[in-house]
Amino acid sequence: MNTLELLRMVKEGKITPEEAELQLRVQPFVDLGYAKADTQRLIRQGATEVIYGAGKTPEQTSGIVKTLRERGAGCVLITRCTPEITQKLKEEFDDFTHYTEARICTVGTPETPSPNSFVCVVTAGTSDISVAEEAAVTAETLGSRVERVYDVGVAGLHRLLSNMETIAKARAVVVVAGMEGALPSVVGGLVNVPVIAVPTSVGYGASFGGVTALLSMMDSCASDVSVVNIDNGFGAGYIANMIDKRSAPL
Amino acid sequence: MNTLELLRMVKEGKITPEEAELQLRVQPFVDLGYAKADTQRLIRQGATEVIYGAGKTPEQTSGIVKTLRERGAGCVLITRCTPEITQKLKEEFDDFTHYTEARICTVGTPETPSPNSFVCVVTAGTSDISVAEEAAVTAETLGSRVERVYDVGVAGLHRLLSNMETIAKARAVVVVAGMEGALPSVVGGLVNVPVIAVPTSVGYGASFGGVTALLSMMDSCASDVSVVNIDNGFGAGYIANMIDKRSAPL
Amino acid sequence: MNTLELLRMVKEGKITPEEAELQLRVQPFVDLGYAKADTQRLIRQGATEVIYGAGKTPEQTSGIVKTLRERGAGCVLITRCTPEITQKLKEEFDDFTHYTEARICTVGTPETPSPNSFVCVVTAGTSDISVAEEAAVTAETLGSRVERVYDVGVAGLHRLLSNMETIAKARAVVVVAGMEGALPSVVGGLVNVPVIAVPTSVGYGASFGGVTALLSMMDSCASDVSVVNIDNGFGAGYIANMIDKRSAPL
Amino acid sequence: MNTLELLRMVKEGKITPEEAELQLRVQPFVDLGYAKADTQRLIRQGATEVIYGAGKTPEQTSGIVKTLRERGAGCVLITRCTPEITQKLKEEFDDFTHYTEARICTVGTPETPSPNSFVCVVTAGTSDISVAEEAAVTAETLGSRVERVYDVGVAGLHRLLSNMETIAKARAVVVVAGMEGALPSVVGGLVNVPVIAVPTSVGYGASFGGVTALLSMMDSCASDVSVVNIDNGFGAGYIANMIDKRSAPL
Amino acid sequence: MNTLELLRMVKEGKITPEEAELQLRVQPFVDLGYAKADTQRLIRQGATEVIYGAGKTPEQTSGIVKTLRERGAGCVLITRCTPEITQKLKEEFDDFTHYTEARICTVGTPETPSPNSFVCVVTAGTSDISVAEEAAVTAETLGSRVERVYDVGVAGLHRLLSNMETIAKARAVVVVAGMEGALPSVVGGLVNVPVIAVPTSVGYGASFGGVTALLSMMDSCASDVSVVNIDNGFGAGYIANMIDKRSAPL
Amino acid sequence: MNTLELLRMVKEGKITPEEAELQLRVQPFVDLGYAKADTQRLIRQGATEVIYGAGKTPEQTSGIVKTLRERGAGCVLITRCTPEITQKLKEEFDDFTHYTEARICTVGTPETPSPNSFVCVVTAGTSDISVAEEAAVTAETLGSRVERVYDVGVAGLHRLLSNMETIAKARAVVVVAGMEGALPSVVGGLVNVPVIAVPTSVGYGASFGGVTALLSMMDSCASDVSVVNIDNGFGAGYIANMIDKRSAPL
Amino acid sequence: MNTLELLRMVKEGKITPEEAELQLRVQPFVDLGYAKADTQRLIRQGATEVIYGAGKTPEQTSGIVKTLRERGAGCVLITRCTPEITQKLKEEFDDFTHYTEARICTVGTPETPSPNSFVCVVTAGTSDISVAEEAAVTAETLGSRVERVYDVGVAGLHRLLSNMETIAKARAVVVVAGMEGALPSVVGGLVNVPVIAVPTSVGYGASFGGVTALLSMMDSCASDVSVVNIDNGFGAGYIANMIDKRSAPL
Amino acid sequence: MNTLELLRMVKEGKITPEEAELQLRVQPFVDLGYAKADTQRLIRQGATEVIYGAGKTPEQTSGIVKTLRERGAGCVLITRCTPEITQKLKEEFDDFTHYTEARICTVGTPETPSPNSFVCVVTAGTSDISVAEEAAVTAETLGSRVERVYDVGVAGLHRLLSNMETIAKARAVVVVAGMEGALPSVVGGLVNVPVIAVPTSVGYGASFGGVTALLSMMDSCASDVSVVNIDNGFGAGYIANMIDKRSAPL
Repeated sequence: MNTLELLRMVKEGKITPEEAELQLRVQPFVDLGYAKADTQRLIRQGATEVIYGAGKTPEQTSGIVKTLRERGAGCVLITRCTPEITQKLKEEFDDFTHYTEARICTVGTPETPSPNSFVCVVTAGTSDISVAEEAAVTAETLGSRVERVYDVGVAGLHRLLSNMETIAKARAVVVVAGMEGALPSVVGGLVNVPVIAVPTSVGYGASFGGVTALLSMMDSCASDVSVVNIDNGFGAGYIANMIDKRSAPL
Repeated sequence: MNTLELLRMVKEGKITPEEAELQLRVQPFVDLGYAKADTQRLIRQGATEVIYGAGKTPEQTSGIVKTLRERGAGCVLITRCTPEITQKLKEEFDDFTHYTEARICTVGTPETPSPNSFVCVVTAGTSDISVAEEAAVTAETLGSRVERVYDVGVAGLHRLLSNMETIAKARAVVVVAGMEGALPSVVGGLVNVPVIAVPTSVGYGASFGGVTALLSMMDSCASDVSVVNIDNGFGAGYIANMIDKRSAPL
Repeated sequence: MNTLELLRMVKEGKITPEEAELQLRVQPFVDLGYAKADTQRLIRQGATEVIYGAGKTPEQTSGIVKTLRERGAGCVLITRCTPEITQKLKEEFDDFTHYTEARICTVGTPETPSPNSFVCVVTAGTSDISVAEEAAVTAETLGSRVERVYDVGVAGLHRLLSNMETIAKARAVVVVAGMEGALPSVVGGLVNVPVIAVPTSVGYGASFGGVTALLSMMDSCASDVSVVNIDNGFGAGYIANMIDKRSAPL
Repeated sequence: MNTLELLRMVKEGKITPEEAELQLRVQPFVDLGYAKADTQRLIRQGATEVIYGAGKTPEQTSGIVKTLRERGAGCVLITRCTPEITQKLKEEFDDFTHYTEARICTVGTPETPSPNSFVCVVTAGTSDISVAEEAAVTAETLGSRVERVYDVGVAGLHRLLSNMETIAKARAVVVVAGMEGALPSVVGGLVNVPVIAVPTSVGYGASFGGVTALLSMMDSCASDVSVVNIDNGFGAGYIANMIDKRSAPL
Repeated sequence: MNTLELLRMVKEGKITPEEAELQLRVQPFVDLGYAKADTQRLIRQGATEVIYGAGKTPEQTSGIVKTLRERGAGCVLITRCTPEITQKLKEEFDDFTHYTEARICTVGTPETPSPNSFVCVVTAGTSDISVAEEAAVTAETLGSRVERVYDVGVAGLHRLLSNMETIAKARAVVVVAGMEGALPSVVGGLVNVPVIAVPTSVGYGASFGGVTALLSMMDSCASDVSVVNIDNGFGAGYIANMIDKRSAPL
Repeated sequence: MNTLELLRMVKEGKITPEEAELQLRVQPFVDLGYAKADTQRLIRQGATEVIYGAGKTPEQTSGIVKTLRERGAGCVLITRCTPEITQKLKEEFDDFTHYTEARICTVGTPETPSPNSFVCVVTAGTSDISVAEEAAVTAETLGSRVERVYDVGVAGLHRLLSNMETIAKARAVVVVAGMEGALPSVVGGLVNVPVIAVPTSVGYGASFGGVTALLSMMDSCASDVSVVNIDNGFGAGYIANMIDKRSAPL
Repeated sequence: MNTLELLRMVKEGKITPEEAELQLRVQPFVDLGYAKADTQRLIRQGATEVIYGAGKTPEQTSGIVKTLRERGAGCVLITRCTPEITQKLKEEFDDFTHYTEARICTVGTPETPSPNSFVCVVTAGTSDISVAEEAAVTAETLGSRVERVYDVGVAGLHRLLSNMETIAKARAVVVVAGMEGALPSVVGGLVNVPVIAVPTSVGYGASFGGVTALLSMMDSCASDVSVVNIDNGFGAGYIANMIDKRSAPL
Repeated sequence: MNTLELLRMVKEGKITPEEAELQLRVQPFVDLGYAKADTQRLIRQGATEVIYGAGKTPEQTSGIVKTLRERGAGCVLITRCTPEITQKLKEEFDDFTHYTEARICTVGTPETPSPNSFVCVVTAGTSDISVAEEAAVTAETLGSRVERVYDVGVAGLHRLLSNMETIAKARAVVVVAGMEGALPSVVGGLVNVPVIAVPTSVGYGASFGGVTALLSMMDSCASDVSVVNIDNGFGAGYIANMIDKRSAPL
């Protein structure tokens, strides 16, 4: 049950304001002193919750994981894990998994993909793979089947074209690219589903830590491209999963 | 039939290279001399095609519309129409509609929305309405049912909260905002579907023609927000329709 | 007595120019060779003086503290303390206090808040807490009662709304936020007192070390928001205290 | 009664959710179709309401003024008035006043300043006067006594020093400057009250439409300076009035 | 004979310093009072000279053309011609040609291309054509055979691939693109000759008058791409001709 | 007598504070209501005063000129004159001179240059001449002998070298350049006196209204180059005259 | 045989689509799991292939070298080699060469320059030499004769002029410069061949890691200058070699 | 004798081209293989020469010093010395001096100031002192008498005014400031000689490594301010000395 439903129930007299107030305080975030751990997604029994690990201590992270599990989370996904957080979680939890390249840990069992689920994660170069893995593991943990197509940048077009059959079948495509960020435009022109573009901070010279790629993707001539923040693989995987999950069977 | 399918047919020997070559030249774009009118979307009988009006003469625009209709387009949507283009189309075509605020013309009958279709277009202020209408009319013409919730910026939060019931039911939400561009973050935290954020060039002072809003949306703390170019209402409406159309019934 | 009053006394013949000249040289700054320690605030018996610690050696800092105390400062507040400065001050002074997270040291007894005093310091995330503490400790040391409301960013609106009762009672509100910097706009729309916004350098991707948050706050639609420099918790706390102290009882 | 008080009353059972819901829809904004006229300040009998005129038609503006007056606004202040809006308001309302240089219209009688009220508005050059007048007229209409000190930029320091006696008596100071934006730092070092700095888009060469002044003010060494958006005289006057009004008698 | 050869002759004693000094003053530029008309290319009998028209009066332009013809220029190419310059030149000279879209005038007979000469000028969109024509007409006037391939942007890849046979035969390729500027990377990966990329100021949103395209081209992953200034069709045509002219027969 | 001398006289008891206060108010600026006309330079009998014309009405400008003449200014130099100001001054004053290209008017007789006076003003192109003339006329009016060397940009080095004999004799050199702004570095390496570089807003593409030239001049490898604001010919002429006037005979 | 030729053969029926498909997969890139090693240049017996070393492990790099050699590459050039890559290659291959300053390794025998081959690499300062060496070694390995002219920046013009005889003989000139980036303009005005400008990240103050030099080179007044990315010595050497190799004997 | 004089002698027949050519090669720069050590200033018996130390090895630096001394340099000034360079020079040369804070070494005896020589170096804060010392020691070594006035920023105006008597006597003033960079405007309005402003990279928040200070100084309202690069104390001291040395006795 989410905040809005709660507010409606107050209005409809189904619960008293006092109860609602209690709910509002208890349910959607957990006040641990050092954090009001917002679950970002509504807590349903068995669903996956997300923690952004960067800037948290191992103890804080571990504490939030524990609280979320106690409140019914089936799986907890922790992004941007430092080695210290990873070590702590490994010690504390049995059903722990570590995805090195994605810098992601999970505690619990990821959701099972539906039969038609299909997200494709594409990169322009090999140095974009870390960000792409963050997107791929996020989508997988949240219940998508994911195919990776890496190192198919536009300066060697044959590499991309050889893989278009795979890409064209996806229900949402994540395209990760640094440097000139041209790949989403090309992919966007070849597929017929939403393309989520992720600029990466990879590059030298006039790439400005991903800004050139970001602007280039913004200016894409393809109508089906939208963009998330530089290196934000998590966001792209999250949105791709959202679209994938809700898609009707083709 | 799209380019990729064609290439596969060549490989599978279903058509000769010569036929494929002919198809490739004939089908996906129309060479009118002044333009290789790319249809962007595959030409299927009765589907909607899109023309970007800016920078084209009335004669060129009219010529492309005619060609597309002849090749089976059920409806043609023309964005960024100048008064001259609008006048020309009005004279030339019977089933012409003009959406003033959206600066869009259509020729033909828009697609009919499915029963569950629902896209919500939200704006922070009244000066964002022109861009929002471009998004709304685009999605409608492509077959979505669209609800508009305008002028609900974050500095008067009660306006937004009073309308959240409507917004929360959408299958995709377009949020249009200039100035500090904060609305997509707030909406993104309240809904559970993809939010497509459109920064607008509205604003004064340090808004830099939409750049502040663009960066602010990029940096959104909400996981379900992706961003299109400044003032790109068309792109947002196009993607929202894509997601809406493919969504399974709730 | 400040410089302007002095100049007026010279004009009114109350003191001779020679005396005034002496006063001008002696009073408002202390020439220690390595620094003309400007007290920034007028030296009154017992009031609090401020030193910006960054870029000073432990010896220089300690020397300035000593001089200020000798000239009547009731309390000295030192911001941006390095561990070396902190260690030195701890050794040299008895009535020393160290605020680790705020990176502030004080020597002497902070001013006592008036009964109605109330400043509220709000953060969007946990990583903004260090800057927020600089604001809070500054305002406290200068004589304000301070309430902290941390980790209530706009992407989880219920967290903020649950705390609005507290925030709405303040006589000045400091809002600290990185990333998209949207929180001051939302708070500014809900309260009826000056909001001092502090952008933080927290964030990744297109946050540019706080510039996006700064611009976003600048462009705030709320009328009661003004902005200080990136990470400048001290300035925000200083101004909030100024407003708080002079406010009439409600 | 504001939104928060309303929410508390719901919780305390003083009004039913249905009544509260009605209140929420009726009171804090007026839905005129083309706008959800947010009053920004709570509507109390006789208080002043503000409309941002830019981007509204004369008819829309006039309609909002009428609604606000009907709901009890003592005075309505309209900023950034175009000549068309001004003409329309002049025709429609008797108690109309037009402040040419400030581009402000008022309908109704401004609030009366309290005996101790004193805001000072300072400019660096003559070309900053238009923005300064927006600040001054705003503060005056909202009930502050305002003194203007114009054309006292730092490159001719004697002009500023000759006027410091006036400036130093204010309870809040607005400093308006373009070009290098140095004046707030100097004034901030000489007074002991909050300084609200307004960068202006005045200047040529490397002034970038006010950005250099904005950054310069941000980097001010004076502790009591906060900054509003480029050319945002209204915001500065609004905040200065807020501080002025609440200040206890000296 | 160029400046360097002259300097060498002075050193070798072949001409006296006085003669050389005279030569230096007389030959490489023509001092017309209002301009030291630099010919940019060495004056050889019958070769083509170039005048940058922008910012010159019709009289000045006409005067320079006359002087250059008298000193042996076979053809004079004038870029960025205003209508006034065009009119004046038309009146003054018989062997005048006007290229409307390229905003170029020529006086005299362009150089004849060699049998193997081949420059290809490619654009991403129709709005890039004006800049592309400046490149094409420049190269043609200087003696290259030029093929135009317009409107083959990367979001509709089939348009480009259908034309690659032509493009791949060129000895130098000029690629003109605005928006995300991705086309040079794709073309650069498909051909084996120098690609000169020209960013155009075409675009809206985050294209910043061509800066995004410029940066994107700079960051190209293709090794054979170098870049000239925004909208600098002349420079690209000039360099392409230079490479084309010196190429050995394949 | 300047402000500092006055302050010293107060201190030395030579004048009473009251007299000094009067002097301070009377002498260095003229309060005309619409402006506190700062003379910028101390008023000595017969010296030249400067008014920045931009943003002033013809009446205001004329009023300031009159006041300055009455107080003993030998000559008044008005920069950035609009046609309206020029017309007004022409009507009002007999000893009026108008320098069209420099957009400067003078009223009165310019100062006579000393025998050794010599300032050289150099431009890269013809489109820099307007800014250069502002520098040249300023320096001339203030009493320097000025030589102009125009259109000698670095891409045609022979033009510069042919004129170096003249340039090398100057006691201060003003170099005006747009585009890549390379000329000051080259001139700075060839002369042995201060070079004042003026970037101009001339240029297209990536010249950003003079910013590229400004940055390029800032980064100059030549040790004797300092830079003034974009298009600030007045400032460069003013500083060059200052250096020229104080130089001892060679 | 390249991709385009292959596609033409499919169309002409010379090979079956199946064969072509195989070719497309086998030939132009090598799928090593961690990379789809694009050869960038077509694989001809004995030609040179290029690997961009940055971001690859020693094992990956070594693996790609091996595969390329097996498929017929005469020489493999690896740029941006880390010490670890260098060490690994040294151990693995006999015909290994290491160019320390250029950070380049080669495996195999570089191509032999043709008799007329001549590329000149010029730098403004000594700190540009590393980038210049990358250009020089690249061009040499690909079969050009290269002459180096280092440390001839524009602030000491005599150094450049003393070396112009050498530079003027080249068939393509690479000019490497940081700081104000003025050297390409000067060289471009003195030679008659394509100049490829490389901005370097060398510099301090307002050089912004090479951006000032990049913009300055973009704005060059010389017609024959095109620009590659900051510090991209490889690209410049590659293009210069391309031009050099194809040039007809003079 | 400088390059220009030499060229004139060739033209006048006073020396043969061969001799001149020899002179040109021998005199103004020393080709040491690793550097064409440009002396920047003409070599006269006993004068001071300058070496920019950054990026040179101790051996290279020492070698250049030796060569310059052998060719008659009275004193060699080396800026931006690393500890390694400093150590090497200390070991190699007897008449060595090290200025720690200025990061400057000198070998030889600095020039003796003339009786009237007076340069004033002013800083806004204590953290600007390192750059200021570079300016001061440079000017002193080149023969100026220098007075330092440090830590007199504009937010504590009394500190500056107390020192204006000293500053006002200088023949050239160097003003060093970071943060908002306002000091040069204030000083420029109070003195009557050229002010050379040096922005420093000191600061935090929106100071961008000195860019805000640089822009602010560029936009200075004072007519006598010109600007050098960020942290370029050397350049400022060099120019101030140039002006000082040539000034006639007052």
